[in-house]
Amino acid sequence: MFKAAINAELLKDAIASLAVIVDEVRFKIKPEGISVKAVDPANVAMGIFELGSSAFEEYSADECEIGIDLNKITDLLGIADRNDTVRMELDEGSNKLLIDVGGLSYTLSLLDPSTIRAEPRVPQLELPAKVVLNGADLRRAVKAAEKISDHMLMGVSGDTFYMEAKGDTDQVRLEMGRDQLIDLKAGEACSLFSLDYLTDIVKPTNKVNEVTLSLGRDFPILIDFEIANGAGRISYLLAPRIESD
Amino acid sequence: MFKAAINAELLKDAIASLAVIVDEVRFKIKPEGISVKAVDPANVAMGIFELGSSAFEEYSADECEIGIDLNKITDLLGIADRNDTVRMELDEGSNKLLIDVGGLSYTLSLLDPSTIRAEPRVPQLELPAKVVLNGADLRRAVKAAEKISDHMLMGVSGDTFYMEAKGDTDQVRLEMGRDQLIDLKAGEACSLFSLDYLTDIVKPTNKVNEVTLSLGRDFPILIDFEIANGAGRISYLLAPRIESD
Amino acid sequence: MFKAAINAELLKDAIASLAVIVDEVRFKIKPEGISVKAVDPANVAMGIFELGSSAFEEYSADECEIGIDLNKITDLLGIADRNDTVRMELDEGSNKLLIDVGGLSYTLSLLDPSTIRAEPRVPQLELPAKVVLNGADLRRAVKAAEKISDHMLMGVSGDTFYMEAKGDTDQVRLEMGRDQLIDLKAGEACSLFSLDYLTDIVKPTNKVNEVTLSLGRDFPILIDFEIANGAGRISYLLAPRIESD
Repeated sequence: MFKAAINAELLKDAIASLAVIVDEVRFKIKPEGISVKAVDPANVAMGIFELGSSAFEEYSADECEIGIDLNKITDLLGIADRNDTVRMELDEGSNKLLIDVGGLSYTLSLLDPSTIRAEPRVPQLELPAKVVLNGADLRRAVKAAEKISDHMLMGVSGDTFYMEAKGDTDQVRLEMGRDQLIDLKAGEACSLFSLDYLTDIVKPTNKVNEVTLSLGRDFPILIDFEIANGAGRISYLLAPRIESD
Repeated sequence: MFKAAINAELLKDAIASLAVIVDEVRFKIKPEGISVKAVDPANVAMGIFELGSSAFEEYSADECEIGIDLNKITDLLGIADRNDTVRMELDEGSNKLLIDVGGLSYTLSLLDPSTIRAEPRVPQLELPAKVVLNGADLRRAVKAAEKISDHMLMGVSGDTFYMEAKGDTDQVRLEMGRDQLIDLKAGEACSLFSLDYLTDIVKPTNKVNEVTLSLGRDFPILIDFEIANGAGRISYLLAPRIESD
Repeated sequence: MFKAAINAELLKDAIASLAVIVDEVRFKIKPEGISVKAVDPANVAMGIFELGSSAFEEYSADECEIGIDLNKITDLLGIADRNDTVRMELDEGSNKLLIDVGGLSYTLSLLDPSTIRAEPRVPQLELPAKVVLNGADLRRAVKAAEKISDHMLMGVSGDTFYMEAKGDTDQVRLEMGRDQLIDLKAGEACSLFSLDYLTDIVKPTNKVNEVTLSLGRDFPILIDFEIANGAGRISYLLAPRIESD
């Protein structure tokens, strides 16, 4: 059993944060909320998604797992007004999700969860440095780096967080000191990341006040922020690239 | 003789409602206004257009017929500001239309009406059901249906008007009861229509308060609404598709 | 030595006015400001650009010449907010320009000026007619002409300035009398210009109050207006086309 109602804009944003990683996902539904863990097809980026029941206007659920094509949901939500309420109900017999938005009733066939890549194990990482910054600052640095290169260095040096991209001839660097950051835990950290992935991942951060980055030396980065006004959370784990120079 | 002046925005909207059916049309000009009847090249959709002289700021005309390339007019009106006045005068000797918009004088060669498909005969149909609804509701249902399928069922069942589209696995349905509609004349009606055509036809309805649909059982649909603040009217007649299941 | 700070929007607009002519330019830097003279690869249009030191928030420079790829600068400025200050400093040793925008530090490799086409000689022309008009009027006429043809006649006849484009069947003409113009110096003038070039050149004039056109009979046109709130000036010299009819 699963029956829920949620604001359309809020669901759209939550789905968008997942869709940057994968197209088809297993939603793990529990009485306390919905969670997803997924890796991208190339095994470079992982998304860990949690949306608590308090994000919903109505929510009642037994434990179950459903398979969703995120593109279809995104498409359907494109019709909704931002203040519409989206009502969902699982029809277990037919394996369909009934979705009602502003008078329109959708009957969405679900995917068989067993055909979707299994939930990955989240590695336990010791990431010594932590940086909390405004999402718009992060996005701006990534956009600037894209103009120059296809990868970007991120690190902490003393009390300064930095992002740097080098092209064949040009270079861009952003440095933020402790006073420009929301929080900083100093630690040895410097890793190189693919901008292909970073660009997608930071897209939803533009409206986010606090994004937490956890970093190490040639280690994955953990990019982490609240969604749904604090009722949910998305974390991305992105593998580093090996520096070739 | 034909000489007229009209608000640019109003003319743009009127032309746009015709352009969804055909590119080249015969304008029938009379002292009381302008009318067009045209079918699309595939004989699936017909447009019946009327723009009374009261839609114009100035209007004086003898009976005549001119051939117009709607794409050219649309292009030229693209330069106009929405509050500009468009002045038109027919130069019968040279078969040109002189158009003046905000100081720019266009000389537009007219098409020979005899090279344009003749005005079609409008079939007399007995369409038992009639639905009056808000144009934005109609457009929204058609946009939702497009996500799912390339055709759409429209019908009346008891006191309910419904639109439904079925894809290979998914389905969308909008039901509107008598109290959600502006008016309803119940009657047996259920026909299937191509979304290729419906999408174009409902595009101009977004700003229209009242759209009248006349429906029957496997019969054409008549989609009908006012243009030019009531000084004109456009009706579309769209042939049904045969249901294949 | 070259060190300067300038409003991002102002620099963006100034660069855009140059970029319609060429991609790579030699900036001539002097204590009193920056100047550029460049011709397009086909030798049809010339741009003469001047940006005085008063356009800058800070400015100090010795005489020097640097080679710039305008596309790169445009790209970088795309990240800036309109009220950001852009700080630039020349690093002569490495032949790089250090650019700082809102905390982001770019290191931009400069081009070797000797690899860029030398500054052209500006021909001394006797252009008998002069027209001063609003930039938006000019742009509107050019946009209308594009719908009809790929070249455009511009001239002065008595006290009237006119622009005219003829297509195979259609024609558009704008006439502006002395009272609709900001200023007019009558003189024999009528020349034909390629709309490919005019379209680009008039793009920046949309926000410009006064554009001065200097014209002759089958002569180049000089299109001239202030940039940077009067602290700079851009002039375009466009060669005429030979009328083929």
